[in-house]
Amino acid sequence: MKAEIIAVGSEMLTPDRIDTNSLFLTEELNKLGIEVVRKSIVGDNRDYLSAAFHEALERVELIIASGGLGPTEDDLTRETVADLLGRKLVLNNAILQYIEGRFRQLGREMPAVNVRQAMVPEGAEVLENPRGSAPGLWLEARGRRIALLPGPPRELKPMFHEQVLPRLERLGSGIRMFHRELRVAGMGESAVEQRIKPIYTRYADVNTTILAAPGEIQIHLRLWTGDAAHAQKTLDDITQSFQLALADRIFSQDGSSMEEVVAHILSMNNATISAAESCTGGLLAQRLTTIAGSSSYFLGGVVCYSNELKTAWADVPPELILSKGAVSSEVAIALAHGIRRSTGSTLGVGITGIAGPGGGSEEKPVGTVHVAISHAAGVKERGTRFPGDRETIRWHASQLALDMVRIHFLYNGGEPPARTSARS
Amino acid sequence: MKAEIIAVGSEMLTPDRIDTNSLFLTEELNKLGIEVVRKSIVGDNRDYLSAAFHEALERVELIIASGGLGPTEDDLTRETVADLLGRKLVLNNAILQYIEGRFRQLGREMPAVNVRQAMVPEGAEVLENPRGSAPGLWLEARGRRIALLPGPPRELKPMFHEQVLPRLERLGSGIRMFHRELRVAGMGESAVEQRIKPIYTRYADVNTTILAAPGEIQIHLRLWTGDAAHAQKTLDDITQSFQLALADRIFSQDGSSMEEVVAHILSMNNATISAAESCTGGLLAQRLTTIAGSSSYFLGGVVCYSNELKTAWADVPPELILSKGAVSSEVAIALAHGIRRSTGSTLGVGITGIAGPGGGSEEKPVGTVHVAISHAAGVKERGTRFPGDRETIRWHASQLALDMVRIHFLYNGGEPPARTSARS
Repeated sequence: MKAEIIAVGSEMLTPDRIDTNSLFLTEELNKLGIEVVRKSIVGDNRDYLSAAFHEALERVELIIASGGLGPTEDDLTRETVADLLGRKLVLNNAILQYIEGRFRQLGREMPAVNVRQAMVPEGAEVLENPRGSAPGLWLEARGRRIALLPGPPRELKPMFHEQVLPRLERLGSGIRMFHRELRVAGMGESAVEQRIKPIYTRYADVNTTILAAPGEIQIHLRLWTGDAAHAQKTLDDITQSFQLALADRIFSQDGSSMEEVVAHILSMNNATISAAESCTGGLLAQRLTTIAGSSSYFLGGVVCYSNELKTAWADVPPELILSKGAVSSEVAIALAHGIRRSTGSTLGVGITGIAGPGGGSEEKPVGTVHVAISHAAGVKERGTRFPGDRETIRWHASQLALDMVRIHFLYNGGEPPARTSARS
Repeated sequence: MKAEIIAVGSEMLTPDRIDTNSLFLTEELNKLGIEVVRKSIVGDNRDYLSAAFHEALERVELIIASGGLGPTEDDLTRETVADLLGRKLVLNNAILQYIEGRFRQLGREMPAVNVRQAMVPEGAEVLENPRGSAPGLWLEARGRRIALLPGPPRELKPMFHEQVLPRLERLGSGIRMFHRELRVAGMGESAVEQRIKPIYTRYADVNTTILAAPGEIQIHLRLWTGDAAHAQKTLDDITQSFQLALADRIFSQDGSSMEEVVAHILSMNNATISAAESCTGGLLAQRLTTIAGSSSYFLGGVVCYSNELKTAWADVPPELILSKGAVSSEVAIALAHGIRRSTGSTLGVGITGIAGPGGGSEEKPVGTVHVAISHAAGVKERGTRFPGDRETIRWHASQLALDMVRIHFLYNGGEPPARTSARS
């Protein structure tokens, strides 16, 4: 089955807003084996709106529209679709009472304009909206299905799940989409592509998408089939082959974020962590504490921009800073050791670098970063140079630090065997 | 003039990608007084693509399309538009030589498929693309103008500015869009709306959009006119009236972020700052250090989740934590004083609170936050409760802290006069 998505609302034709409902709707439709062949965004204008629905009805069996169901004169979806299908709008008393009730609950009287929201095209099924005043509508005509949904995502998403999905499933072919998302750190998009292309091209029925996100590469595997066991096995096979090709660079097999993965590893190992950051300015601490319950493994951190604070808070010897420079592997290591000792955590992370745009030199250009992980048995340090602007460099530095923590536990504190590491 | 935007590419009909070029294009077209009446996203399918261009040509005088100009068989924009206009595709030798030259520079031979990119519909003007291999095209037919641009934003944006804009300006009416963005902190969307609605409704020719962003409300004013002096005066007038209505709640009149505003204020005042954070987990430090050059005013910060570290790093008396609780105005104040003393900064910020989802109690529910600003002459403290999830609460807490720094300097360290503060 093919579908089109129509987003209604003049605000989405301004430079400030974008239709994001269609991403959710596409994912949901794809899961059912329904292909989205076109998305349209139309303003609150009867002619343009009518054209959009008319064209879509000519082409596809399913139209999902969002927005334009509000109470004001701008909201034209109901009227336009009714006109187009030659249906009359009739007052639905149940809806009217529901809307009046909502207003009563808020201690207010229903404004007269809201009566519009109770007008329903003849023959339409009402999709209840417990989260807002605009009900949705489901129409069938000439072999076509049309779902009209409210624009706010917090109303649209549950309405889709609760009321549109069951209707589509009844129509369905039994085919489903199976999806897996792997995430890779420490490699570029083309390096990942090069290593996995010989694998995924062998699986003609799997759709593979490689996306570059800040500090990581995301690999989406999608497979449409009615056979769940086959899907599971195929995705397992590919994942296993990817693991051979990418070794320890895959940090997530279920789309979880690097923060979530590291939080999970720390909890599993009953380990605690602390951080002494310079160039990342608190970004590492902030990412570690994004996760609920992080206080069980994150003890604390310092952001020591100045040399004096590196000494005061992480016990970095002033003469070390003088001799090696604040941005050096030695200072990163001293920061890591110092913060681990002062907080008593299992691991201490030290980060120093030059995020730019100023502060670079020929010897230490912008993007130079040193990260160290101190643990009871020693320390690991990596120096590198990241490309990009200030924000990108800071993000990459925090990602490298999190990835080093992950790798530390992956090899039980030891070194990765050289031949399995695919870092490039 | 009315325009439609067509984004071409099957990847934009997946759940992973969204067309963002259209936001840039809409802003640019609006500046010229051109209204965007529809956006369409179409996959790499000749029939759907042809329908999209055909429909748009029926409706509007200007079509801007992005994508589908690559060298592979998926890339159908050139062929489809040529077909639709009844034009032949002819080989353009200049483009061919340019593409061959690009490959030579990279030390590679041009693959045969790239010849497609040198095929141009008869009568089309070539838009050069120094940043990629796909040239753009400009076509005029039956009173319609069509610009075909490459999909990657870093190729599309300069091509639009350098080659499409001058062509549109020549067609233009002399009307331009004038835009101003104000930002408001510490008030909700409906409170802002209520205060400024009586003002902006007086200016029929100004389009006012109110957007809620995390921790702030953004007000966009847009005015289309050929008279720059009139536009300037009108926008100044509205801004002035808004300032009377919203008092010190407007923190930005040029769309700059709260971080940028606070960075600017600190620099102007030769002031330095340090932070002791609990619930925000480094978010405040991270936001303050997002700005290039922040090392001149940000001395350092600590993230002290544990009570022990609150004492070790910010000198908070253990008995104070015991008697008042870690989340209390007293501890926020002690954190602020302590971090200011230990770093020697002009201002010290202390933040403590419960970001959730766990850790709340009846007396101190999730969302409870205390922020204190310590300065040479004393301290300011605010306790409040923010709604929302962990991320939202943390963001609001950091926003409140930044806003308190701003207000501190606005009133030269004194208290805001009660009647001018519009906080609600």
